[in-house]
Amino acid sequence: MTIINLDVTLRDGGYRNNFGFSLEYVIRHAQASVAAGFDWVEIAYRGGSVRPIDPLGLTGRGDDDLIAAVAEAVGAEHVAMILHPKNITEGDLPAMYDAGARLVRVCVSPGQIDAAVATVEQARSLGFTVGANFTRASALAGPELVQMASTLSAAGADVIYLADSNGSLLPPKVAELIRHCRAAGSPAVGVHAHNNLGLALANSIAAVEAGATWADSSVLGMGKGPGNLVAEHWTPFLLRSGRADGLDLGSALQLARDLERAVPEATPALALPDVALGHFDLPVEARSAIDADDLRLVVQSARALCAS
Amino acid sequence: MTIINLDVTLRDGGYRNNFGFSLEYVIRHAQASVAAGFDWVEIAYRGGSVRPIDPLGLTGRGDDDLIAAVAEAVGAEHVAMILHPKNITEGDLPAMYDAGARLVRVCVSPGQIDAAVATVEQARSLGFTVGANFTRASALAGPELVQMASTLSAAGADVIYLADSNGSLLPPKVAELIRHCRAAGSPAVGVHAHNNLGLALANSIAAVEAGATWADSSVLGMGKGPGNLVAEHWTPFLLRSGRADGLDLGSALQLARDLERAVPEATPALALPDVALGHFDLPVEARSAIDADDLRLVVQSARALCAS
Repeated sequence: MTIINLDVTLRDGGYRNNFGFSLEYVIRHAQASVAAGFDWVEIAYRGGSVRPIDPLGLTGRGDDDLIAAVAEAVGAEHVAMILHPKNITEGDLPAMYDAGARLVRVCVSPGQIDAAVATVEQARSLGFTVGANFTRASALAGPELVQMASTLSAAGADVIYLADSNGSLLPPKVAELIRHCRAAGSPAVGVHAHNNLGLALANSIAAVEAGATWADSSVLGMGKGPGNLVAEHWTPFLLRSGRADGLDLGSALQLARDLERAVPEATPALALPDVALGHFDLPVEARSAIDADDLRLVVQSARALCAS
Repeated sequence: MTIINLDVTLRDGGYRNNFGFSLEYVIRHAQASVAAGFDWVEIAYRGGSVRPIDPLGLTGRGDDDLIAAVAEAVGAEHVAMILHPKNITEGDLPAMYDAGARLVRVCVSPGQIDAAVATVEQARSLGFTVGANFTRASALAGPELVQMASTLSAAGADVIYLADSNGSLLPPKVAELIRHCRAAGSPAVGVHAHNNLGLALANSIAAVEAGATWADSSVLGMGKGPGNLVAEHWTPFLLRSGRADGLDLGSALQLARDLERAVPEATPALALPDVALGHFDLPVEARSAIDADDLRLVVQSARALCAS
């Protein structure tokens, strides 16, 4: 089964540089990403990420002129945006569509289903392809997940996405959650992995083997915390396992070289405290509370926080 | 099933720094590794790696005084060595045992079975725990692998190790090769993964699910080319999946912090040309032949080399 691939570098990678990519780089990146065979380039949050960030750069604001510039460069059929319902008003979705976005992904958390349903319905009625992104999937129990997936699918979501926000899931659990979403009648299911435990690739493999057909990855893994599924690893896996149409490894690797030269914050690192966060299923926001020079203390603090 | 863990940082990581670890660091590392719960610390090659390296540091020579110093620090029951049969003479194994090594791993390649058998037999008769390490496992066909595993097991190997030297294997293939070794009657099977395609963790998981009970990993993944299975990722996986006895995550992470501060060459990197090597199943020695500033050319060259 061919996988639909989203490049989330400019958006999720923005957590590394306050979303401060230059317009020139955003356009160059989007062009190279499409040339490498990515189906969609997620260029920005609309109106900010889940928590306020100051100063908030270009790909954290997701204004109409950014959308229009990228759509002109690569074609609207490749332009994706993401948003939290609380950050938009009724006029945002029509403006985004007019500017040239064609996929919109709506972040969904358990306490805010109604707002998400309304946003998905509006997006669908405007003609968007619509994703419903369930954040912190590790906190969702099976029946709750089935209910949420069923509700959002009925509202018009084309794809239900599971985001392992804490990077804490193991492959069998990912497969189980994907099967729950499929059982709920979701038209399609996607996976968004984080790499705290180095499992982003293993988890994404488990997801597609369980029936996921959409996947997020980032160039050099550039993303929140220790980052996302690494596009340079995902691409050869898809090619070698017969799940890629039109991906080009050389172009993908060259895009990575361009990013590593253009954006210092993209440099991959093995962030040791983030391993402890993933192990104890804690969010990246807990990192400052556990940080210490001695990693044994970090693990002790993470364990205590997890138990509390 | 509990996994027997080898820390191969000082040996495989030596490819990054000409095996130039200081004696003080080797001892500190071995102590921290045992404290973190590793069963064995592989401290060196005996008499050099497969190709001559000049200058060849401490953990590339593996002299008796190095073995003795580490054995005194952590106990002989944790001291492992590795060797290529062509690099030793009859007196080496007795000297190594007397110095305090208790596990020896013998590198085996298809053309050199007889020398490997003789070395395994001698090691076994001296009282070593003995591993037979099949290098370049990606090049071994099923029947050949079964024959080799059967022969080396009969010679006295306690564990048959599959080394994915090119970092090119996908998880289902790893599982298949492990099953071949088990079918050949090997007392135990181990996995030694490389990370060209980011699959070291997924492949090691596939290996233990297929019945492997020994695994190599490196602190920060420090190893040849793009490195080995990352110990800081392997440890939480084993803990979370109930396959670890006595591993301590905090101690493992602190060891990684010490290594990253003590040895600059240990810094993890996403080496883009090595992805192309892994994708086309080429050895690390081919890297200079394909390197170029434009990764699209690198992939073209790798494809051509692979087809030639």
